[in-house]
Amino acid sequence: MNKKISKTERIALITKTLIENPSQIFTLNYFSDMLDHAKSTLSEDIKSIEASFEKYHLGKIYSISGAAGGVYYLPLAHKTFVEKVQTDLCNKLSETSRIIPGGYLYMNDILYDPSWLEKIALCIVSYYESASMDYVVTIETKGIPLALAVARILNKPIVVIRKSARLTEGTTLQMNYVTGSKQNIKTMSMPIKSIKRGSKVLFVDDFMKAGGTAKGVVDFMKEFEAQVVGVAVMMSTITTEEKLVQSYYSLIDFKGIDEKNKIIHMIPSNNKSDFTL
Amino acid sequence: MNKKISKTERIALITKTLIENPSQIFTLNYFSDMLDHAKSTLSEDIKSIEASFEKYHLGKIYSISGAAGGVYYLPLAHKTFVEKVQTDLCNKLSETSRIIPGGYLYMNDILYDPSWLEKIALCIVSYYESASMDYVVTIETKGIPLALAVARILNKPIVVIRKSARLTEGTTLQMNYVTGSKQNIKTMSMPIKSIKRGSKVLFVDDFMKAGGTAKGVVDFMKEFEAQVVGVAVMMSTITTEEKLVQSYYSLIDFKGIDEKNKIIHMIPSNNKSDFTL
Repeated sequence: MNKKISKTERIALITKTLIENPSQIFTLNYFSDMLDHAKSTLSEDIKSIEASFEKYHLGKIYSISGAAGGVYYLPLAHKTFVEKVQTDLCNKLSETSRIIPGGYLYMNDILYDPSWLEKIALCIVSYYESASMDYVVTIETKGIPLALAVARILNKPIVVIRKSARLTEGTTLQMNYVTGSKQNIKTMSMPIKSIKRGSKVLFVDDFMKAGGTAKGVVDFMKEFEAQVVGVAVMMSTITTEEKLVQSYYSLIDFKGIDEKNKIIHMIPSNNKSDFTL
Repeated sequence: MNKKISKTERIALITKTLIENPSQIFTLNYFSDMLDHAKSTLSEDIKSIEASFEKYHLGKIYSISGAAGGVYYLPLAHKTFVEKVQTDLCNKLSETSRIIPGGYLYMNDILYDPSWLEKIALCIVSYYESASMDYVVTIETKGIPLALAVARILNKPIVVIRKSARLTEGTTLQMNYVTGSKQNIKTMSMPIKSIKRGSKVLFVDDFMKAGGTAKGVVDFMKEFEAQVVGVAVMMSTITTEEKLVQSYYSLIDFKGIDEKNKIIHMIPSNNKSDFTL
């Protein structure tokens, strides 16, 4: 055994590997090859790291036994973290400079900022912790960064539904759907090879109004024999009486804008812990 | 001082914090508050972590002195890592099942996979290590995930140029440009508040042919008084004689498809280390 690799080095390098690759399984053999130490020692190291994270509620290290076994790290948000993200988001989104004529809010700075995305994604992943999924599905354009942030934590690919078929994406399936709020007819398009049949997917988007898009995605996924196991958005309106999807996760409830007095109404969403669609 | 927090715990938690937030500066006070230890001890801990990463060529921990000082982690790819990513990408992209009629290649599975994106982004960040930038700019749709992966490592926001103005994004600036390969006229649109004047930006996209889009972005950024300090793509063609941008970074050179014999020609790009535009 190489005595030159100290315990400090081992802890730093194992922690780095796990944190840099969330939801990716590493075998003891992997660490043993990398650090030239006995698996028993490395197993103890991993237990110490696990205990440190637990103590501070900073995510979990899971062990999988058996031939395909190993350990992986899943960042999970504590309840107090989620509440702080919701409050901070409400404050940030209530800035009056965000008001766009027509009752819209400028949100690009949040939806395109990696550190905000990371926090929001962590809340979404934590909510759907017990669900298993194969893909994170989104619809172009503004939901893509959030979908990728979620997918990175879960180590799953994203799938992007487009508004029209592209020459460069091969054979596509297309479906028309009716938007919930304005009853417009729009199109969803996706390459047939972008998703394996029988998959479970999480739909992630920036904003939900009546839920027409989300319902469209649920229907569209059926054409791919895929099941939507969750719907997550950063913000949803609570002005529309009933959503077209029964269950979803949202960080913020948007209650509208008083454009005359420049007041934006929103509150943290109160999500039930039952997420079955 | 709290004796309960062992060195192992400190190393694990400091490593976790730095790795989980690349390019984000943390002060010694931050760690001192978090771990309830003297700054001198924590400074030693950080030096040990830094040494471990250096030894294995696994990125760098930088120290910034002064009032706004602290430490941050920047993942950097070693030359051998970059070469392996290039070779792996060539092999992956040479699968004949990717051929789409018209000389196109299906690449969504790579462009939408977090672990591929992370590796490609690491190569891009490492190439432009000495450049400083305020934003990562891309154009919808397929380049967005790669742009976000780069932006996450740099801890900078992304900016997405759209093909037409949106109601929900406020006042936009629009510009027409000519695509290099087919001489079509297209439009770029971006909210005026999406970028601070005087900024430096890195343009990231999935694919470059003649470079008409990249040149368009360079011109469009001038309207925002912003300077493009780098252009990075996953793949560029080498069939077109001269690119419309002088300098760019590419991982793969695409030489075309022999559709009859189902052979895809591509090689790792040979990038000069001089990246000035």
